[in-house]
Amino acid sequence: MMLPEKYGVYLGAFEAILKAYCAGLKAPEGLSEGMRYSLLAGGKRIRPVLFFAALDAFGADWEKETELALALECIHTYSLIHDDLPAMDNDDLRRGKPSNHKQFGEGNAILAGDALLSEAFTLSMRAARDENHRRAGEILAHAAGAEGMVAGQYADLAAESDENAGEKELAFIYENKTAQLIRAPLMMAAAIAGREEGKMREFGTALGVLFQMTDDILDVKGEAASMGKTLGKDAEENKLTCVRVYGLAEAERRADELAERAKACLEHMDAETGFFEGLVEYVRKRDR
Amino acid sequence: MMLPEKYGVYLGAFEAILKAYCAGLKAPEGLSEGMRYSLLAGGKRIRPVLFFAALDAFGADWEKETELALALECIHTYSLIHDDLPAMDNDDLRRGKPSNHKQFGEGNAILAGDALLSEAFTLSMRAARDENHRRAGEILAHAAGAEGMVAGQYADLAAESDENAGEKELAFIYENKTAQLIRAPLMMAAAIAGREEGKMREFGTALGVLFQMTDDILDVKGEAASMGKTLGKDAEENKLTCVRVYGLAEAERRADELAERAKACLEHMDAETGFFEGLVEYVRKRDR
Repeated sequence: MMLPEKYGVYLGAFEAILKAYCAGLKAPEGLSEGMRYSLLAGGKRIRPVLFFAALDAFGADWEKETELALALECIHTYSLIHDDLPAMDNDDLRRGKPSNHKQFGEGNAILAGDALLSEAFTLSMRAARDENHRRAGEILAHAAGAEGMVAGQYADLAAESDENAGEKELAFIYENKTAQLIRAPLMMAAAIAGREEGKMREFGTALGVLFQMTDDILDVKGEAASMGKTLGKDAEENKLTCVRVYGLAEAERRADELAERAKACLEHMDAETGFFEGLVEYVRKRDR
Repeated sequence: MMLPEKYGVYLGAFEAILKAYCAGLKAPEGLSEGMRYSLLAGGKRIRPVLFFAALDAFGADWEKETELALALECIHTYSLIHDDLPAMDNDDLRRGKPSNHKQFGEGNAILAGDALLSEAFTLSMRAARDENHRRAGEILAHAAGAEGMVAGQYADLAAESDENAGEKELAFIYENKTAQLIRAPLMMAAAIAGREEGKMREFGTALGVLFQMTDDILDVKGEAASMGKTLGKDAEENKLTCVRVYGLAEAERRADELAERAKACLEHMDAETGFFEGLVEYVRKRDR
């Protein structure tokens, strides 16, 4: 299964923006080093790519929106650093390399995460030059925060020690821990282009949940080498996943259903949606 | 030594705003509880008070600026939660109560901090309704981040294991760890009132460094009961402070000198500066 053709265009543009940004970081050298280490560890850059793709789909000038694209990746990266900490998921590996706290120590990793979230804040304030951009930054801040991604992380942590956690808790975790920051770039693009946010919200929620479901399914099915992280760890750590709640076969069926629902959301959108249809296919069928 | 008379007016207004804000938190209950626990643990609320006082001194309508006042306190509170973590300062007590991670566990404390920083981000985006308020939010974000408070925290942590750390490192830590978030509310008020930021920057830097110097001096001289935290801990943990670098007597002399410099900054300011003169006196002479 291949990524949509234009994925590489958006990704290439973002990598160049990110590289220049990392080169310009003005924090104390050790702190900048920790921030760069995780920002440049690779990854699919799905959030900035979604942001650029949605702006493009709405006919907006996507290449200009560098600050909010960086803000999205800064937030995602900080969340991975804090999530890997011993008091959280306790992961030693991330994308095949030592996780940030393994490389730089726990205190420095906490601070690198704090610094990256603060950078997202600074970049968004800088971008807020008109009402549409202010609104885009507000969407991002809200999606990342106590009623968004952090709420999802909190519920995820709580579920590990709650043997009664089930379908309801799972849905909350999927929607908040992952889908919030997948739908945010889509809604932000709608805000900037002056379009309705609601349809992108609906599509992005489906895409985000699908993304996390397939990730959890791959944790069971995938191979260590191709994922670049410790596999089968979810079950070992009693993580609440769709595989644990539904079993593998039913989880796969639900993922298929959700992929169809996501594609249906695209039908009534006043935008070029080919990229997103291809992306849904890819996310459902990827094997790594 | 008494606080300036109007301190109580600004403080009372802020406490009411904070109480209403805490009551309206919509995060998952356990997460909101952790956020409220630290937000409502007391403290001097010096950052929002400085913000209100400076707005008032410039003749602006200070009572309306609730969002940025809350954002300031959210950032200060998150920094205390993360600073107390075992991987950082490892403090079990804060304001006479168990620190956040002692009360709620380390993972939840990391998330409560992340949530509070995200709240500051959300509140600032919401406040950015015109260019002056956008600029105020940008000042805050920058002061809190990788070139501000987090840089100071990083340097503070690094200095603990650097036996060559001295005057230069101390100046960097004082300016960034503490003074950044003391001068930020003053500069934010200037931005909102459409005044020059530079003079408030200069005064706020002096006030902020003075505040941290007197705090470090009190750590050596104060009594455990009146400070509500573990005393003499700085020396025990090899913290880089003005007492360690200069000795107590010379540190006291430098604090006096800095208080004079801070007051001199006020002389050429086009604002009602009586409150700030009184505050400098108080900060220098307080015994708790």
